[in-house]
Amino acid sequence: MKRRYFLSNTFKGIGSFMMLQTPLIAGAAQLLDKSKKTYTVQEVMQVILKDIPGAPFKQTVDTLKSGSESNTVTGIVTTMFTTIKVIEEAVKLKANFIIAHEPTFYNHLDDVNTTTANILVKKKQALLLKHGITVWRFHDYWHACKPDGIQYGFMKKMDWLPYFKSREELVILPKVTLQRLIDQLKEKLGIEKVRFIGDLSQSLTRVAVMPGSWGGKNQMQILESLNPEVMIVGELQEWETAEYIRDAHLTGSTTALIVLGHAVSEEPGMEYLVEWLKPRLPGLPVTHIASGNPFSWV
Amino acid sequence: MKRRYFLSNTFKGIGSFMMLQTPLIAGAAQLLDKSKKTYTVQEVMQVILKDIPGAPFKQTVDTLKSGSESNTVTGIVTTMFTTIKVIEEAVKLKANFIIAHEPTFYNHLDDVNTTTANILVKKKQALLLKHGITVWRFHDYWHACKPDGIQYGFMKKMDWLPYFKSREELVILPKVTLQRLIDQLKEKLGIEKVRFIGDLSQSLTRVAVMPGSWGGKNQMQILESLNPEVMIVGELQEWETAEYIRDAHLTGSTTALIVLGHAVSEEPGMEYLVEWLKPRLPGLPVTHIASGNPFSWV
Repeated sequence: MKRRYFLSNTFKGIGSFMMLQTPLIAGAAQLLDKSKKTYTVQEVMQVILKDIPGAPFKQTVDTLKSGSESNTVTGIVTTMFTTIKVIEEAVKLKANFIIAHEPTFYNHLDDVNTTTANILVKKKQALLLKHGITVWRFHDYWHACKPDGIQYGFMKKMDWLPYFKSREELVILPKVTLQRLIDQLKEKLGIEKVRFIGDLSQSLTRVAVMPGSWGGKNQMQILESLNPEVMIVGELQEWETAEYIRDAHLTGSTTALIVLGHAVSEEPGMEYLVEWLKPRLPGLPVTHIASGNPFSWV
Repeated sequence: MKRRYFLSNTFKGIGSFMMLQTPLIAGAAQLLDKSKKTYTVQEVMQVILKDIPGAPFKQTVDTLKSGSESNTVTGIVTTMFTTIKVIEEAVKLKANFIIAHEPTFYNHLDDVNTTTANILVKKKQALLLKHGITVWRFHDYWHACKPDGIQYGFMKKMDWLPYFKSREELVILPKVTLQRLIDQLKEKLGIEKVRFIGDLSQSLTRVAVMPGSWGGKNQMQILESLNPEVMIVGELQEWETAEYIRDAHLTGSTTALIVLGHAVSEEPGMEYLVEWLKPRLPGLPVTHIASGNPFSWV
């Protein structure tokens, strides 16, 4: 890490034109090139955390779920969920470091003793071990980035970056119907079906954007404090925000709700992570693999 | 309470034929009739809790959310969610006691200070006060009933009572395809659309039945311990059970998942409560009002 940082600063002083002209700098470039191929997991993590305000955190779920900090990274895969399919695709890409937004072992703290027998957890651990895959959860840090990496990736995917206002949770769109807004979300995020509350013909401009699962308290607080015309969420607890919005409609509110699904709602943020990582880790292959939506509808 | 119990025992000794024949008994029947019309909320609660093992509980969410124990009950409405529509319909029925399975104020503990402004909570409280409605949450107690009132109501609604085996969470059905099973659930529970994971043509007999929101740990524990061919849930957290089942499929499991929606999955249990309550509260009008599903799909 420190060596790369030093080289980088040296180059800044010399300038890129000279780099290509002198044998001395060519040698240094080789050194840099060599360093590209020898990132350890720990070095990649340090590169990333350098740009996360307040990192490293004392308490975080963003720990290694398999593998080791000392592993040499052959390639990075970013994804929402380290599904078994994502692991298999990473192996095909010869990438041994998966950076995933959500848990690997089906609960927030990745407790591997959630069930008595842990049948599936053991199978997954064996698969990760067999292929020497390191998994790092990148949840708290990515949300703590300025701007929030998930939020930014969502806005970017939707082409809504020009509509950002002072609060990251709110965009003021050109007037659009709920139906058209849902169509755009489905098309750009690749979503087959959404749940919603509202009137498809209603017109909207104030859109609260909350991909993932912010929890009822946060979702309701945003509803009351920002007064959006529609709230877009990834996931919710039905007895909280859905019941709130249903009751609000019965008292005259017309604030609509769109439930995208958790995985598909935050995937753009993990896709954007590739773009954010590449200039920070020159020469290291970084690929996004969408874990996708797990459900069908009938 | 005690007087009614005494009268009831007296009648048992005398027999119903004599009751209709003698003026003495007719007078007693009038007394009973009079008692029917003067239940307080507290008396209704006592009648119910007498038949719940271990009740009253020291710690429970089953508290009064509005009104008072001393209110005289004009009629009971059972429902899943005390929505504003359910309140309005109860008022039309002149029923002032709502027994609801789920929270009134959009969070598990019915904390009325969840958001800073509490705009909607205040409106709902004012509406309940205006109409003198008492709301009692009936969640922990109904699940603690033997059999679990929600579970029993679900099985009854599905005509699955004959298929109950030793565990309440499992029924062994005559062989059915996933498609046919979903069709039956939609038809009998009045559900428009469900999310699922699985192959619609697969055949099933072992069905784990978990209406409501049991949590990922319980859902996964049942998957591993009972090895069902399909699990039916009301609600789940997507990063838990849905990801578990998706990964399980990638390791060769074919256990399917059906997500009914929280409200519609437990409503049959609150409908069954009417039948359970009526003989315990003779003369008191008890009506079920379905709060229904809050979502549309597109």
